[in-house]
Amino acid sequence: MRVRRKPWASQYIQAHPEVVTDQPQMLKGSWHEKTGGAQLHVEVGTGKGRFVTEMAAKHPELHFVGVEQVESIIVTAVERVVEKELSNVTLIHGQVDELEEMFAPGEVDRLYMNFTDPWPKKRHEKRRLSYKDYLTKYDQVLKAAGEVHLKTDNQQYFEYSLGSFSENGWKLKNISLNLHESEWEADNIHTEYEEKFAANGWPIYRLEAYQYK
Amino acid sequence: MRVRRKPWASQYIQAHPEVVTDQPQMLKGSWHEKTGGAQLHVEVGTGKGRFVTEMAAKHPELHFVGVEQVESIIVTAVERVVEKELSNVTLIHGQVDELEEMFAPGEVDRLYMNFTDPWPKKRHEKRRLSYKDYLTKYDQVLKAAGEVHLKTDNQQYFEYSLGSFSENGWKLKNISLNLHESEWEADNIHTEYEEKFAANGWPIYRLEAYQYK
Ligand SMILES: C[S@@+](CC[C@H](N)C(=O)[O-])C[C@H]1O[C@@H](n2cnc3c(N)ncnc32)[C@H](O)[C@@H]1O
Ligand SMILES: C[S@@+](CC[C@H](N)C(=O)[O-])C[C@H]1O[C@@H](n2cnc3c(N)ncnc32)[C@H](O)[C@@H]1O
Repeated sequence: MRVRRKPWASQYIQAHPEVVTDQPQMLKGSWHEKTGGAQLHVEVGTGKGRFVTEMAAKHPELHFVGVEQVESIIVTAVERVVEKELSNVTLIHGQVDELEEMFAPGEVDRLYMNFTDPWPKKRHEKRRLSYKDYLTKYDQVLKAAGEVHLKTDNQQYFEYSLGSFSENGWKLKNISLNLHESEWEADNIHTEYEEKFAANGWPIYRLEAYQYK
Repeated sequence: MRVRRKPWASQYIQAHPEVVTDQPQMLKGSWHEKTGGAQLHVEVGTGKGRFVTEMAAKHPELHFVGVEQVESIIVTAVERVVEKELSNVTLIHGQVDELEEMFAPGEVDRLYMNFTDPWPKKRHEKRRLSYKDYLTKYDQVLKAAGEVHLKTDNQQYFEYSLGSFSENGWKLKNISLNLHESEWEADNIHTEYEEKFAANGWPIYRLEAYQYK
């Protein structure tokens, strides 16, 4: 994601501790307490936060968490939450790799993965957010049978993700190879990347995966 | 599949009992004896037999079985086997529904499903050859971790099949949303339907599924 340098980002983030944190271990295990028992929906690789903020506005009964590693990107998500005065979004400036330091086992109700970087080269496989080591983390923090909802425009990444979830013991359902023409479009909130790719006329792929034991 | 009536089909089939049978229960449990221990690869919904005959010519070390219910269609497959003098193909004039009367548990090494009818209407779901009742039959006759290889041009049928296999406890691997541009194309024998659809420029989908316990 290309972004201009934003020297004020760090200050802006520090000025909004009610919205964004880089100390998520403080919240681990007490999310439901903090959110008054609301279900927790977490997006990994949130980017500029269009998805979490629109979802939060549409679903005031849920609490949304966005995890994003790049400061100059997440700052836009913080601005959105502040401007829309959303009280049901928490942003985490940090790495998905640290998910188990952010959430206690079973604390997350659903996980979203939208247009995360495909890392097409085989030698970068471990960086893909559907690589098996990440799936193990998702399984740890998700409640039993909690779902991962994945969207992408990238055909190879989608093929890879179907296989990776399935071979690592997840079940797949509600698959679409053309989300915007499917029955799931009615409830579908577009992300920034989704808007861009759809404008090019490319199909968007989606799946749901859940663990069962 | 549209076919002209072929009044001679029945006679031709009866004249070639070494190639085609409608009494497969006679072979159940003794396939490996019959084939000299060769691995058994079964195609369900074989049609006119282009796939099984080309596979058989390419892989003389394997034995191929094609199951097809329509007499005026399977007769073309019989002609092909006779003309090419293939000794490693057996055709079964019968219904996939009867698979467990054709093969003993674990007797089949691999199963192919090529461009089988998509039955798009929800009320016809049970007729789709990836419907759960069929998957149970496949699991019965396949050896442990034996694979199903599926190809189709139909997007909805492919989405359905991914979900059906996965939700019924199969693992998926080697998925492609564009077989003819993929690494599997090198070894890919085209079926009659595949040739037709590819000529229209439509992508061909493929998956492999296997049971694990
Ligand atoms: C391609 S963008 C998509 C953004 C947004 N989800 C969308 O659909 O518009 C992927 C984002 O994920 C972030 N990201 C990738 N890997 C990450 C990781 N391991 N931890 C945290 N963020 C990550 C990147 O910094 C980037 O902002
Ligand atoms: C669309 S054609 C495809 C033929 C061939 N596999 C190909 O790819 O060219 C499907 C074939 O499956 C056969 N078929 C469908 N359901 C069947 C069943 N339950 N038992 C046996 N054959 C079946 C049909 O008669 C038809 O010939």
